[in-house]
Amino acid sequence: MSNHTHDHEMKVYGEIKLFAGTGSPGLAARIAKYLNTPLCEQEVIEFPNENLFVKLKHSVRGQDVYVIQHTSSPVHRNLMELLITIQTLRLDSAARITVVVPYLAYGRSDKKDQPRVPISARLVADMIEVDHVNKNLKPNLKDPVVVAADLGFAKKGRNFAADIDAPIAFVEKRRAANDAKAEALSVIGTVKNHDVLIVDDEVDTGGSIAQAVNQVKREGARDVYLIFVHPIFSGDAAQRLAALPIKHIITTDTVPIPPEKLMHLKDRITILSVAELLGEVIRRAHEGRSVGEMFNE
Amino acid sequence: MSNHTHDHEMKVYGEIKLFAGTGSPGLAARIAKYLNTPLCEQEVIEFPNENLFVKLKHSVRGQDVYVIQHTSSPVHRNLMELLITIQTLRLDSAARITVVVPYLAYGRSDKKDQPRVPISARLVADMIEVDHVNKNLKPNLKDPVVVAADLGFAKKGRNFAADIDAPIAFVEKRRAANDAKAEALSVIGTVKNHDVLIVDDEVDTGGSIAQAVNQVKREGARDVYLIFVHPIFSGDAAQRLAALPIKHIITTDTVPIPPEKLMHLKDRITILSVAELLGEVIRRAHEGRSVGEMFNE
Amino acid sequence: MSNHTHDHEMKVYGEIKLFAGTGSPGLAARIAKYLNTPLCEQEVIEFPNENLFVKLKHSVRGQDVYVIQHTSSPVHRNLMELLITIQTLRLDSAARITVVVPYLAYGRSDKKDQPRVPISARLVADMIEVDHVNKNLKPNLKDPVVVAADLGFAKKGRNFAADIDAPIAFVEKRRAANDAKAEALSVIGTVKNHDVLIVDDEVDTGGSIAQAVNQVKREGARDVYLIFVHPIFSGDAAQRLAALPIKHIITTDTVPIPPEKLMHLKDRITILSVAELLGEVIRRAHEGRSVGEMFNE
Amino acid sequence: MSNHTHDHEMKVYGEIKLFAGTGSPGLAARIAKYLNTPLCEQEVIEFPNENLFVKLKHSVRGQDVYVIQHTSSPVHRNLMELLITIQTLRLDSAARITVVVPYLAYGRSDKKDQPRVPISARLVADMIEVDHVNKNLKPNLKDPVVVAADLGFAKKGRNFAADIDAPIAFVEKRRAANDAKAEALSVIGTVKNHDVLIVDDEVDTGGSIAQAVNQVKREGARDVYLIFVHPIFSGDAAQRLAALPIKHIITTDTVPIPPEKLMHLKDRITILSVAELLGEVIRRAHEGRSVGEMFNE
Amino acid sequence: MSNHTHDHEMKVYGEIKLFAGTGSPGLAARIAKYLNTPLCEQEVIEFPNENLFVKLKHSVRGQDVYVIQHTSSPVHRNLMELLITIQTLRLDSAARITVVVPYLAYGRSDKKDQPRVPISARLVADMIEVDHVNKNLKPNLKDPVVVAADLGFAKKGRNFAADIDAPIAFVEKRRAANDAKAEALSVIGTVKNHDVLIVDDEVDTGGSIAQAVNQVKREGARDVYLIFVHPIFSGDAAQRLAALPIKHIITTDTVPIPPEKLMHLKDRITILSVAELLGEVIRRAHEGRSVGEMFNE
Amino acid sequence: MSNHTHDHEMKVYGEIKLFAGTGSPGLAARIAKYLNTPLCEQEVIEFPNENLFVKLKHSVRGQDVYVIQHTSSPVHRNLMELLITIQTLRLDSAARITVVVPYLAYGRSDKKDQPRVPISARLVADMIEVDHVNKNLKPNLKDPVVVAADLGFAKKGRNFAADIDAPIAFVEKRRAANDAKAEALSVIGTVKNHDVLIVDDEVDTGGSIAQAVNQVKREGARDVYLIFVHPIFSGDAAQRLAALPIKHIITTDTVPIPPEKLMHLKDRITILSVAELLGEVIRRAHEGRSVGEMFNE
Repeated sequence: MSNHTHDHEMKVYGEIKLFAGTGSPGLAARIAKYLNTPLCEQEVIEFPNENLFVKLKHSVRGQDVYVIQHTSSPVHRNLMELLITIQTLRLDSAARITVVVPYLAYGRSDKKDQPRVPISARLVADMIEVDHVNKNLKPNLKDPVVVAADLGFAKKGRNFAADIDAPIAFVEKRRAANDAKAEALSVIGTVKNHDVLIVDDEVDTGGSIAQAVNQVKREGARDVYLIFVHPIFSGDAAQRLAALPIKHIITTDTVPIPPEKLMHLKDRITILSVAELLGEVIRRAHEGRSVGEMFNE
Repeated sequence: MSNHTHDHEMKVYGEIKLFAGTGSPGLAARIAKYLNTPLCEQEVIEFPNENLFVKLKHSVRGQDVYVIQHTSSPVHRNLMELLITIQTLRLDSAARITVVVPYLAYGRSDKKDQPRVPISARLVADMIEVDHVNKNLKPNLKDPVVVAADLGFAKKGRNFAADIDAPIAFVEKRRAANDAKAEALSVIGTVKNHDVLIVDDEVDTGGSIAQAVNQVKREGARDVYLIFVHPIFSGDAAQRLAALPIKHIITTDTVPIPPEKLMHLKDRITILSVAELLGEVIRRAHEGRSVGEMFNE
Repeated sequence: MSNHTHDHEMKVYGEIKLFAGTGSPGLAARIAKYLNTPLCEQEVIEFPNENLFVKLKHSVRGQDVYVIQHTSSPVHRNLMELLITIQTLRLDSAARITVVVPYLAYGRSDKKDQPRVPISARLVADMIEVDHVNKNLKPNLKDPVVVAADLGFAKKGRNFAADIDAPIAFVEKRRAANDAKAEALSVIGTVKNHDVLIVDDEVDTGGSIAQAVNQVKREGARDVYLIFVHPIFSGDAAQRLAALPIKHIITTDTVPIPPEKLMHLKDRITILSVAELLGEVIRRAHEGRSVGEMFNE
Repeated sequence: MSNHTHDHEMKVYGEIKLFAGTGSPGLAARIAKYLNTPLCEQEVIEFPNENLFVKLKHSVRGQDVYVIQHTSSPVHRNLMELLITIQTLRLDSAARITVVVPYLAYGRSDKKDQPRVPISARLVADMIEVDHVNKNLKPNLKDPVVVAADLGFAKKGRNFAADIDAPIAFVEKRRAANDAKAEALSVIGTVKNHDVLIVDDEVDTGGSIAQAVNQVKREGARDVYLIFVHPIFSGDAAQRLAALPIKHIITTDTVPIPPEKLMHLKDRITILSVAELLGEVIRRAHEGRSVGEMFNE
Repeated sequence: MSNHTHDHEMKVYGEIKLFAGTGSPGLAARIAKYLNTPLCEQEVIEFPNENLFVKLKHSVRGQDVYVIQHTSSPVHRNLMELLITIQTLRLDSAARITVVVPYLAYGRSDKKDQPRVPISARLVADMIEVDHVNKNLKPNLKDPVVVAADLGFAKKGRNFAADIDAPIAFVEKRRAANDAKAEALSVIGTVKNHDVLIVDDEVDTGGSIAQAVNQVKREGARDVYLIFVHPIFSGDAAQRLAALPIKHIITTDTVPIPPEKLMHLKDRITILSVAELLGEVIRRAHEGRSVGEMFNE
Repeated sequence: MSNHTHDHEMKVYGEIKLFAGTGSPGLAARIAKYLNTPLCEQEVIEFPNENLFVKLKHSVRGQDVYVIQHTSSPVHRNLMELLITIQTLRLDSAARITVVVPYLAYGRSDKKDQPRVPISARLVADMIEVDHVNKNLKPNLKDPVVVAADLGFAKKGRNFAADIDAPIAFVEKRRAANDAKAEALSVIGTVKNHDVLIVDDEVDTGGSIAQAVNQVKREGARDVYLIFVHPIFSGDAAQRLAALPIKHIITTDTVPIPPEKLMHLKDRITILSVAELLGEVIRRAHEGRSVGEMFNE
């Protein structure tokens, strides 16, 4: 009976067709492997005058298409490639086009609690909390405490702490009363003699993470671990992290880290793949089953 | 020179025309007083079959119209009246229609950090932080600490604490390990022997506020104050608050509190008006000056 | 061959999925019975602050969904529930959503011939004329004449009269020359010594119907029957009707009549169900057959 | 004070600019005269391959433009000329474009009470009732009765009858029981020994009007007058009318009657101009005053 | 495997349904023959007042519909019939509607290189170049040279010349220096002692074609052939062509030539059918295969 | 009287506000000088993660804004900056936003006659023809002939030739019969012993221009001049041009040429500014006067 429904629904939208933008070849290949379906071939032609042109190798007419493309550096070229790919798929009469953006540029801001945070970003953030990290990490920790590096991440940090059954603390940054440019950090909650897991959604230049690491150290933290979803690593962020007293870094493959940046962190970084989770999201979206229930137990 | 620009721009959009929805007569009158402009008259007719009909007393053609209407109880009637009013103003060729919604139904949820929080809600929340409360309240407090009752309000609570130069703490709610229904509360940060200011954006049924008040009391807080923007007060919330060990409540007039609810809190509640702030927002919007700079020093 | 087409088309839109809004449980159940398909389960949650939330029990992805909801009292709550239901079904990727509104608020006005009369209202009016009423009623009547209570209903009244092969007359209301508030009624055509069937599309407060009944009585009508599609019955309309010299009332179940109103009319009212007709409309819409030909012989 | 408002509003939309489509030169000139403003010049070029091109002689940028064009024969050419004119005005940045269509093709149907009747058609129908006809006609009539030739026109016919303080009657057409093709006419109400004013919104082929005229004559009407808004006069309608026992015909200039048709009715037709009424509508629309109150006393 | 895909895709859009507008009965019948599918029956009713009404004989719900209608004379009636047909098909829930317009009015202009040239026009122009003409014509020619009658057709003329492996030349028209109204023609390239194939996309009044024919003759061309896609033949274009020293004319059936025009050219004109090409375009569009590759070798 | 109208229209759209995108500082400054109005200040902030943010220094509310930005290299960054600027201006309530794009990426293609060529590109091409080049260049030429390097530019090349009263010739490229990859060039028309002006709309890699130059030289041209609108100069196009037997190059400042490319062509290139023409276009657009008549004598 449920087989029948399944058949029926595949007819409505056709079959899964996975496309990898040029920004995300590795992650897309891992998702394809999870879904046991080949990546579709397309050609992204870049003319001498930088103009892009996307050519499909096979028709997607009537199919259920998913395009995987992060929009980190080169930001504007990746965005434009994504838009042109969508337009090309639409002209070829895809039945449905779903864009899977593991990292969305222009979705971040200094005010992390603002309304424009995209659903896809939240999805990935939820994934890392619920499903992976606790299982790999927890056995090695001594009296761990989770520290949210930014108050805009307070609620997600708390959820993560609850998942690994650890207490939560917060880093608070406040402008110093006598000097408009100086900032005073403080930790709310207890980190002394605890292993500290600093959590955040992304590391861009690494500036505020560095402040947080130093502050918890000053307040007596034992080992410091760093956990975040998106390794943007603008400029010399990787070197900066390498110089900090961090025991280990855990992040994901939503944005590929170029080898020349990765080498600075060689043995101190673990990159978890979001491929299985994104693959499962795609499978459920395609089959019309609930995506939300993956994240709410 | 700036006069010239001002004249010119008033020509582009016409004059301020203020309309009060039936839900917000008091607040609208206060805003009109601040702006020194009369409320426009309209007639909201309700037929025996509940259908509403809005009739303008004067043309708004070419004018810059502002409609003030909260959307708390009766929620759906207030929403529909607002929509019909907008439609009526549009048919009468208003040059621009701006809806001022001091409280937006369907804008709240259990996840307060979600993207649907409307700008107007944020605006009001910012107002209360920056402009009023500290001046009225601070002289009476002894070693005050601000407590965010919900982690989704962490960042705004911190801003408020910074404004009054007080430390911040958080109430965390976690499901008890051995009982799926029970919840364990804890306070992160220090409240013992402090006067505590619990801050939140609204009080609906008052359930989680009650938990927060009791918890800070259990952890040794001295006097407890309650500060929130929107007094929704569903069901018997007012009685519930009255029964709690709260020294004083400070809220605003974004939603009118019916007298039969207000009497339970008689001497223990201060209602600040957002009229001056909303009036200033309207004036700036009308004159094309920045609204944002009211909230960012 | 036609079977093949039939199969094919059911595949295009999936299967019929019937949803009953909270306003129309009885009628929806009768339609479901006619179509021999179960009502789909959904949960309409109303929070303490009146906000509504609709939760589907099963996915409707790729299906052909019909939502049955009248929009009579409580008008605004029913409208909002309908909108939220549609939005929820859309997010769940229903292939097609058809709203079946047996009675549409805001669709009526003093000028019944105006362009905004919704198709659904006309549909139901046509149904009652063509298919039901004549068969049940006619044997008991002596020299019946049909009287349209409102000139905006003249054409439909005439169609009804032609169906039961009776003459037609009209009630005309005119402002008295010497008194702007008074109205003079007259009957155009003959009612004296006839059984009179007063027809209209709805009874709201019952005011103009009372005038019509009294006028035809004054002009010598024998027995008076009242036939109308929508029993809105605002305020004390039911009592008002009960006090009139009406032999019998025939109406439909497009709007449920609350028991406390119905009791006033106990033995003098027949409620015909539009379930079979609406069910047939749904079946034809689903199968892609003509709906219009049900009403044009 | 009202002068001030007037000035202000003329600034918002600029000045009235009147354009006459090639279908309505006479009426447009009369409207221009009423408004004391010249018609704007444009050139409508028709290429050998029938394609039309509209060229403005002066810019309408920022102005309040009104285009007067009926859409009777040649229907499709007139419609297309209207669309091209609107597009040309839009490209030239008119501030507001209002189309004044004295007669709208595709707005009529066998079911005159259907929702697609355009507002402009109703406007003109209201005009003729309220403002003109009664004053000119009434002194000559003996015991006049108004007869609506079509039940879809019942309500408007009643309004007209009320305006001239005459009773109303109706012509009803019913298929004969024993012959599906034959139709039996009857008059509801009294016409015997009355002067009869048959009213309708338009005369197209004149077929049903001929039936109505003959029927009221058969039932003993004294003089028969014919009053309708739009003289479409398809085919040989004018000759057909000329052959009927009609004392006099009153219609309007919403559609120009070609001389070769008009000559058949020479001394028996009065053509009232709607120019003053449409001119007044335009003036009020331009000045932002209520149009509706022209028709509701 | 490809069968499977084919089956699948027919399910998505249903079956091909061909409709012939009243302007293109011959071409539509030829396309239907090529596709081996009957033309669908519809009725186009024209009322006495010129209004059109389209009635489908069978439902197209869920089907893949193609409407074939040129928009040459009577231009505006044909356009309106097309729009009404599309609207009727949409209301009957066609899954997809594709309009096949062999000749598009309002798509031509004096500046043939302008952006509004429709894709369908280009398609047909490409067809005639690539597929037909060379095979029929080439054996009879002696030293042929292709002449583009208009520089806006230069590139397509070149493509045609390359297809038949002939050189290209151009007719250039320039205003004479001493007389603003006179035009001087010249031929760029060599035509002397060559058979000349003048190519263009359409012949409307035939004026510039006549100039081109005379000019190449003056410059010593042997036989002159005329090849163009759309035989618009406004006014007396056919007689005009008949009077010119043209050996033979080759055109297509995108626009039907009325017999009274065709007789002037009786033995000197060949009308190629675009039916097979348009039929193949429809088949490929329906099956989701590339249309573009028909035209790019 | 015309003064009055002029004043009035400036009020409708406010004053000219010129913004220079970061890609076009030089050209924008020249346009501002022509219009005698300062460039507006804005700040384009680029975050470490490449995200752009545009901050206006003064409000543009109610003003008539023009943004000048070419979209050549870096193409995607320039496009995104333009989009963000437009969005920022819209949020600040500009009355009208006009984008002036001297060179539009994605507007070019191998088929230059295709419908997507933007109006702005045509505008600039027309400018260079009509207004400038003839006056500067003509005195130095001996028996000049204009050669269109691409048949898609045939019509514009002809217009240019007519302007300077010179004959026209064309370069034609055709695939060699015996070798699919080789191309045979030929010149249609006469270049022998003429000074040749090769004209085109842009030079990208310079490949086809090099072929054209060499071919006209092979066919006996005397001096060769190169005239084109947009100096894209991808890769080593500048060096390539420098190595060709070109006497002089004339182009415009629609796209800035980086100094390291310009130095290769030092004494052999003249860059005409389109600033006066674009400035005049802006002035006319602002004042509501015809832009088209600048280009049609």
